[in-house]
Amino acid sequence: MPESESNRALAYEVPPALRNIRIVLVEPQIPGNIGSVARAMKTVGLQDLALVRPVPFRDSEEAYRFASGAHDLLESAREYDTLAEAAEDLHFLVGTTNRRRGGMLSQPIPMREAAQQIAAIAGRQRVGILFGREDFGLSSIELARCNLGAAIPMAVGMPSLNLSHAVQVAAQEVFVACLEPQPAPPPESAPVGAVEALISRFGELFQLLGSDALTHPAPQALDSLRCIFSRVGLQPRDVRTLHMVVRAMIRRLRQ
Amino acid sequence: MPESESNRALAYEVPPALRNIRIVLVEPQIPGNIGSVARAMKTVGLQDLALVRPVPFRDSEEAYRFASGAHDLLESAREYDTLAEAAEDLHFLVGTTNRRRGGMLSQPIPMREAAQQIAAIAGRQRVGILFGREDFGLSSIELARCNLGAAIPMAVGMPSLNLSHAVQVAAQEVFVACLEPQPAPPPESAPVGAVEALISRFGELFQLLGSDALTHPAPQALDSLRCIFSRVGLQPRDVRTLHMVVRAMIRRLRQ
Repeated sequence: MPESESNRALAYEVPPALRNIRIVLVEPQIPGNIGSVARAMKTVGLQDLALVRPVPFRDSEEAYRFASGAHDLLESAREYDTLAEAAEDLHFLVGTTNRRRGGMLSQPIPMREAAQQIAAIAGRQRVGILFGREDFGLSSIELARCNLGAAIPMAVGMPSLNLSHAVQVAAQEVFVACLEPQPAPPPESAPVGAVEALISRFGELFQLLGSDALTHPAPQALDSLRCIFSRVGLQPRDVRTLHMVVRAMIRRLRQ
Repeated sequence: MPESESNRALAYEVPPALRNIRIVLVEPQIPGNIGSVARAMKTVGLQDLALVRPVPFRDSEEAYRFASGAHDLLESAREYDTLAEAAEDLHFLVGTTNRRRGGMLSQPIPMREAAQQIAAIAGRQRVGILFGREDFGLSSIELARCNLGAAIPMAVGMPSLNLSHAVQVAAQEVFVACLEPQPAPPPESAPVGAVEALISRFGELFQLLGSDALTHPAPQALDSLRCIFSRVGLQPRDVRTLHMVVRAMIRRLRQ
């Protein structure tokens, strides 16, 4: 509805924390949905859109039509080959899902509660909110990379939300949460890239141990570790502690 | 995301109050939007859709495509020549707007607050939530018929929500307001004794490694680990995973 700004009801300056939030779409398959997501984001001032292996959309008339007043977000959206790259500089990942357990050890919490945590963390660190494919959502492995799972409450037996509508609800929850005065921010957590480097070191260690040493195959054991580390929100000094232990082990095994 | 019901996260029985809520679209102009509104409503179990002078949509492939799993709502939607007829049997009307004063005496309140009122009233009376045209919203005269004005908070200077996205946000707010508070039980965590047993195993491991292997003295390294584990709230399966890893390393060092 085109209204002059002075006549706008309930329009707020974009809260600074919102600038630290990235929306990450994993393998979106419909160009119009990418456009709709851009528009949904822009209504609350979210600007950072990352796409992992998206359907081609840059020449899509449909994508731009649905983006309406948010063409700039479509143009500035960045594309990545992997989720790890899209998340490398983020400190906290929230995976949206409507599965009870999506490969995560803990159940997803309601989006409204998740938004409170996101608002607190985004006060000084970068947060990513991940949305999966239209037909399948996020995979278990993708969810295992997340620090937190969030679900939008729905009615039993009903069809799920369209991708862009889910983004709109999440955006709205985060926007409202960011407008509230924030409690003291939680301790700083290590960036995703640093945790992945630690996982790689565990991979080396498992290789040195040999395939018979573990009761699970090494890749599965690494996934279990990633799952724990993601949920914990390791702090930089935790990563250093764990590196110290792994390094000592590796050195010893190579003797 | 196609999931079996038992595997659905945060799926709730439709609260009885929701059956008393009608969504009224006034002069919607795009068939796809009508379809999207039907889908948005159905995700939370809203079923009563009324349309005042809508664009023809009953033969629209687009309307049905966007309605996805909510074709039944499109088919049962009723059409009216006037808002008065569409609202005749309702007891309370909420007009959505993003104008500061839209012909109402009072300013619109945030959708979240409005949802609280709607949930309370819909416990025993019929409520209508009105949405206007895509380009113009509700007229001053239409808003003047409403008992309450509600606005979705947005960022200053940003484009407004798409019609169906506005309905999704309102539906979500009303659904959550109608649900009784149902905090999810926290996940089961491992007993303190099990965590201490794990720490002891790390102690054995560090002893096998020898005092020069770690950059910190072993007791301090163990304290750091305990600190991480306490903060995490390890679950029983986490403890098993970590035991597996430590056991494998101890076995190897003893060879």
